[in-house]
Amino acid sequence: MADNPKSASPSQLVHHEKAEFPTIEFVPNQYAGRNYTVDIAIPEFTCLCPVTGQPDFAEIRVSYVPGETLIELKSLKLYIQAYRSVGIHHESGVNKILDDLVNACAPQKMEVVGDFSVRGGIKTIVRTAYESRE
Amino acid sequence: MADNPKSASPSQLVHHEKAEFPTIEFVPNQYAGRNYTVDIAIPEFTCLCPVTGQPDFAEIRVSYVPGETLIELKSLKLYIQAYRSVGIHHESGVNKILDDLVNACAPQKMEVVGDFSVRGGIKTIVRTAYESRE
Amino acid sequence: MADNPKSASPSQLVHHEKAEFPTIEFVPNQYAGRNYTVDIAIPEFTCLCPVTGQPDFAEIRVSYVPGETLIELKSLKLYIQAYRSVGIHHESGVNKILDDLVNACAPQKMEVVGDFSVRGGIKTIVRTAYESRE
Amino acid sequence: MADNPKSASPSQLVHHEKAEFPTIEFVPNQYAGRNYTVDIAIPEFTCLCPVTGQPDFAEIRVSYVPGETLIELKSLKLYIQAYRSVGIHHESGVNKILDDLVNACAPQKMEVVGDFSVRGGIKTIVRTAYESRE
Amino acid sequence: MADNPKSASPSQLVHHEKAEFPTIEFVPNQYAGRNYTVDIAIPEFTCLCPVTGQPDFAEIRVSYVPGETLIELKSLKLYIQAYRSVGIHHESGVNKILDDLVNACAPQKMEVVGDFSVRGGIKTIVRTAYESRE
Amino acid sequence: MADNPKSASPSQLVHHEKAEFPTIEFVPNQYAGRNYTVDIAIPEFTCLCPVTGQPDFAEIRVSYVPGETLIELKSLKLYIQAYRSVGIHHESGVNKILDDLVNACAPQKMEVVGDFSVRGGIKTIVRTAYESRE
Amino acid sequence: MADNPKSASPSQLVHHEKAEFPTIEFVPNQYAGRNYTVDIAIPEFTCLCPVTGQPDFAEIRVSYVPGETLIELKSLKLYIQAYRSVGIHHESGVNKILDDLVNACAPQKMEVVGDFSVRGGIKTIVRTAYESRE
Amino acid sequence: MADNPKSASPSQLVHHEKAEFPTIEFVPNQYAGRNYTVDIAIPEFTCLCPVTGQPDFAEIRVSYVPGETLIELKSLKLYIQAYRSVGIHHESGVNKILDDLVNACAPQKMEVVGDFSVRGGIKTIVRTAYESRE
Amino acid sequence: MADNPKSASPSQLVHHEKAEFPTIEFVPNQYAGRNYTVDIAIPEFTCLCPVTGQPDFAEIRVSYVPGETLIELKSLKLYIQAYRSVGIHHESGVNKILDDLVNACAPQKMEVVGDFSVRGGIKTIVRTAYESRE
Amino acid sequence: MADNPKSASPSQLVHHEKAEFPTIEFVPNQYAGRNYTVDIAIPEFTCLCPVTGQPDFAEIRVSYVPGETLIELKSLKLYIQAYRSVGIHHESGVNKILDDLVNACAPQKMEVVGDFSVRGGIKTIVRTAYESRE
Repeated sequence: MADNPKSASPSQLVHHEKAEFPTIEFVPNQYAGRNYTVDIAIPEFTCLCPVTGQPDFAEIRVSYVPGETLIELKSLKLYIQAYRSVGIHHESGVNKILDDLVNACAPQKMEVVGDFSVRGGIKTIVRTAYESRE
Repeated sequence: MADNPKSASPSQLVHHEKAEFPTIEFVPNQYAGRNYTVDIAIPEFTCLCPVTGQPDFAEIRVSYVPGETLIELKSLKLYIQAYRSVGIHHESGVNKILDDLVNACAPQKMEVVGDFSVRGGIKTIVRTAYESRE
Repeated sequence: MADNPKSASPSQLVHHEKAEFPTIEFVPNQYAGRNYTVDIAIPEFTCLCPVTGQPDFAEIRVSYVPGETLIELKSLKLYIQAYRSVGIHHESGVNKILDDLVNACAPQKMEVVGDFSVRGGIKTIVRTAYESRE
Repeated sequence: MADNPKSASPSQLVHHEKAEFPTIEFVPNQYAGRNYTVDIAIPEFTCLCPVTGQPDFAEIRVSYVPGETLIELKSLKLYIQAYRSVGIHHESGVNKILDDLVNACAPQKMEVVGDFSVRGGIKTIVRTAYESRE
Repeated sequence: MADNPKSASPSQLVHHEKAEFPTIEFVPNQYAGRNYTVDIAIPEFTCLCPVTGQPDFAEIRVSYVPGETLIELKSLKLYIQAYRSVGIHHESGVNKILDDLVNACAPQKMEVVGDFSVRGGIKTIVRTAYESRE
Repeated sequence: MADNPKSASPSQLVHHEKAEFPTIEFVPNQYAGRNYTVDIAIPEFTCLCPVTGQPDFAEIRVSYVPGETLIELKSLKLYIQAYRSVGIHHESGVNKILDDLVNACAPQKMEVVGDFSVRGGIKTIVRTAYESRE
Repeated sequence: MADNPKSASPSQLVHHEKAEFPTIEFVPNQYAGRNYTVDIAIPEFTCLCPVTGQPDFAEIRVSYVPGETLIELKSLKLYIQAYRSVGIHHESGVNKILDDLVNACAPQKMEVVGDFSVRGGIKTIVRTAYESRE
Repeated sequence: MADNPKSASPSQLVHHEKAEFPTIEFVPNQYAGRNYTVDIAIPEFTCLCPVTGQPDFAEIRVSYVPGETLIELKSLKLYIQAYRSVGIHHESGVNKILDDLVNACAPQKMEVVGDFSVRGGIKTIVRTAYESRE
Repeated sequence: MADNPKSASPSQLVHHEKAEFPTIEFVPNQYAGRNYTVDIAIPEFTCLCPVTGQPDFAEIRVSYVPGETLIELKSLKLYIQAYRSVGIHHESGVNKILDDLVNACAPQKMEVVGDFSVRGGIKTIVRTAYESRE
Repeated sequence: MADNPKSASPSQLVHHEKAEFPTIEFVPNQYAGRNYTVDIAIPEFTCLCPVTGQPDFAEIRVSYVPGETLIELKSLKLYIQAYRSVGIHHESGVNKILDDLVNACAPQKMEVVGDFSVRGGIKTIVRTAYESRE
């Protein structure tokens, strides 16, 4: 009997609190101690609506001033791809990405923006930010 | 133990020959016998590379002259979403969509275009078409 | 007695076969016998999805070569507004507008295009046409 | 004696059949016998709706190949200004301008387009043309 | 007593039939016998209205396939500047430029376009052409 | 013997110190006491080079906050047209227009810009301004 | 002693006749027998000037109607990257890519365009094509 | 005593009939026998007016179908630079470039366009072409 | 024997320290004492690379607030043309133009920008400025 | 046996700590002591990913206020080309370019931006800066 690739029903999707994400790796910042910025744009983000199981699409934009480490970009790609089968609200998704990236690389400052496609005639953009206290 | 939402490895994805897709439904064409065209654009198509399991993104565009039936748009949406966990080459995907839509609604003519995002520095567009012989 | 085309839920909306539309009036074409064209654009068309009761939005464009009569524009406005509480598929709506306009003014030629907003990540454009056989 | 084409309410406006227009004058075409074209754009045309008395605005575009005479542009300006208090349908206005210009200057060919502003959510463009039979 | 630089009154301007224009000079076409084209754009043409004495402004565009000679561009500049105090209708000006250029350089083919600025709310473009009969 | 409309030689042009310009008239500002602005663009300015007698072309832009009076626009048109036969440097022309307009209407503030066409491969823009001291 | 990554001198680069390129692989065309097109754009092509050893940059565009096989995109990427250390003239590079792709996948038709960056103030575009005789 | 770099006076410039130009070199066309096109754009062409010695600027565009040989681009650059001190009319310059390139590489077809900057308020474009008779 | 117009070799070009430039002339500023600005754009600047003798191209932009005198534009044109045979680095050229213009007209403020064409895949813009201390 | 130009494997590329770069040369700043800026854009930067050996592409933009010396542009070109065979992370590359340029020319201030092409669906821009303490 064939496999069933139908789109996720609410019972099939994994809620983000229960999901396990690949580790975001870091590399040493060879220029730590210098204030500089890294801007990252990820136009191919997709996750699932936690209520209906319908896919959502967004461009995620990250901008940060690194501390002692840098985000390793290949692991970032895999981390972002993991949202493909995860049910999460727009606002929670953007804030979770901020938290996970801050935990991974301990930046001096970081901003994350999620620019989501229209759903039900409604377009949403979520912006959130972190600043180190030191 | 938590669920594992990591991105599909080649062994986890479903190859399109083995995948089961939701039926594309049709509605009667109340104006059959008249030559007219329906253009459909679907900017949120995503499937998987059959070799690496990496996600691919595309805009699918369909243009057709209907016969006795019309494509029902909600079932089309679910059919398109089913590619989310399917491994398929760009060229096969676009031609399979053409075949499945032709089988579903028996149009007089149909064209399908798949406009894929850059992968490995390479951007690909596939264009294919069907014309009824009668 | 006809149904009352108020808005909203699937049980409340009026299917187009049962709806009663205001008459599209005409005025005499003072320049009948001359081949000339009239292009009309109506960017504010709205109707309901016959399945879900959700509102749909479109721009309707009409282009015609008049015969003995012209479409009276105020009655056209009222006719178009009547779709607000009517459940109808995109393809049927555009073809019905063509039929109703052809019946109202007996043109030499007419084309109608319906350019609908995105629904469920899918954008649709329908084009249909009439040509008098004489 | 002719009516007086003052502006505004349905009782006050002058229907175009009863209105008196200034003569469109002509000047001799010093290069008659040569096939050449004159394109004229008049972005400031205004007339009245014959039913409601509301003002309508349009750009009138004329293109012609002259015969023995040319349209005198100052008299054309005054002729066009005379529509300000005249009630006339879009289609009749454009065809009347064609007829009056053809009568004034007997061109080899002429095209007139009236590109009207939105009224009641509806935009209209009327195109008409004349060609001498000789 | 001071000079009077007021704009030309109809009695002061020189009508083009009476005006004397500088000669348009030519240079030998070193590549006569080859079919090639020369396109010339002159955005700073100005003349006077023969009726009101008001200044008119235009861009003149010339395109030609040369015969045995080429238009000398400095003499063309002086010829064009001479229209500054000449009263002439748009249509006559463009055709006179064609005739004078054809007489000066005997081209195989030539087209002249005059693209005039708005006057009295009316914009005019005149296009004319010559083709050698040999 | 025919008139001679050749372009002005340096001995024929009128230097601006010796030229007599039509008066710029004014009308009462019915809303004096309110701070508001008037922007005026004149794309058809032409004068002569005081050294070579060659014509220059510019767009003149005026922006002002009126005091007790407003510039009367028809007299402004005639004033601007008077430069047609006047020899004046770009910088002096723009400043003279500022002075003459300030004298005519006593504004609270005024800016004049002259945006001249290319001459000898060089494009020049002159900007000058006046502010009342009260 | 450290490695020397200086840019290739003419003696260090590999001339294309002597270079060994990775095989362009193919996959079966599951829709052979249907006329359809595949457009591929590769904006990151770089090779070396065979005379000076200086790097050249281009966008390569390929458009083809497949026969029994399709170009495998990952092997295409590696094939294109191999030009990084190869010395080849623009015209030869574009024609060699055409030949190698035709040999790899035996298309019905193929066009290759190379759009090269400016070198020495000169920009070059090369276009070449193949059509199967059957 | 210092050198004198003033711009060329008519006695100092070299007329093109007397000037000696560097040879345009060619390289063998490794794909002779295939119909393909090479488009070359040279935006930095400058020569001198043969009458006044003033510099002229143009973009030269060449498009050709090669025969047995290709234009070598570095020698083309030097050939084009040689016009820097040469006095030549626009039309002769463009045709001479065509002749010299045809002589150098014996193409199947070639077109040359010279798009010159404004001089004396006049902009000129010259287009010429060659086709082999075999 | 014919003259040799080949492009300048390093031994033939005149280094800017040894070159003699035409005097930049000035005219009295009839509106001295008023703060106003003059913007000048010169898109046709060309000089030589002091190392290779190769031509460089740039647009020079000058913006200044005049003091007692204005730059005379015809002498500016000749001064700029004199760079045609001069070898000078981009940075020195732009600063030398600033110094020479400041010396010629003693402005209150002046900015000079040199926007150079790509050389060796590198595009350079140099910006420099002067402000009078009084 | 033929040379092998395949794309660099991780064992073949030279890590930037071990690579030897050509010296960035300088020329004396003839206008030292004046605050002015030099903007440099290099759209053709390419290096290798230190992990995968895959090529990366970027536009590098440098903006600086020089001190006693200027960057010599030809040596800058060769320095930039040397990255062609070097493995380096985006962030380290941009900061190393800053350090090497600061060491070469001791500027008052310098900013370096690296605008990298998409890799794995992720686009990165790195911005860093230096300011002299004196």
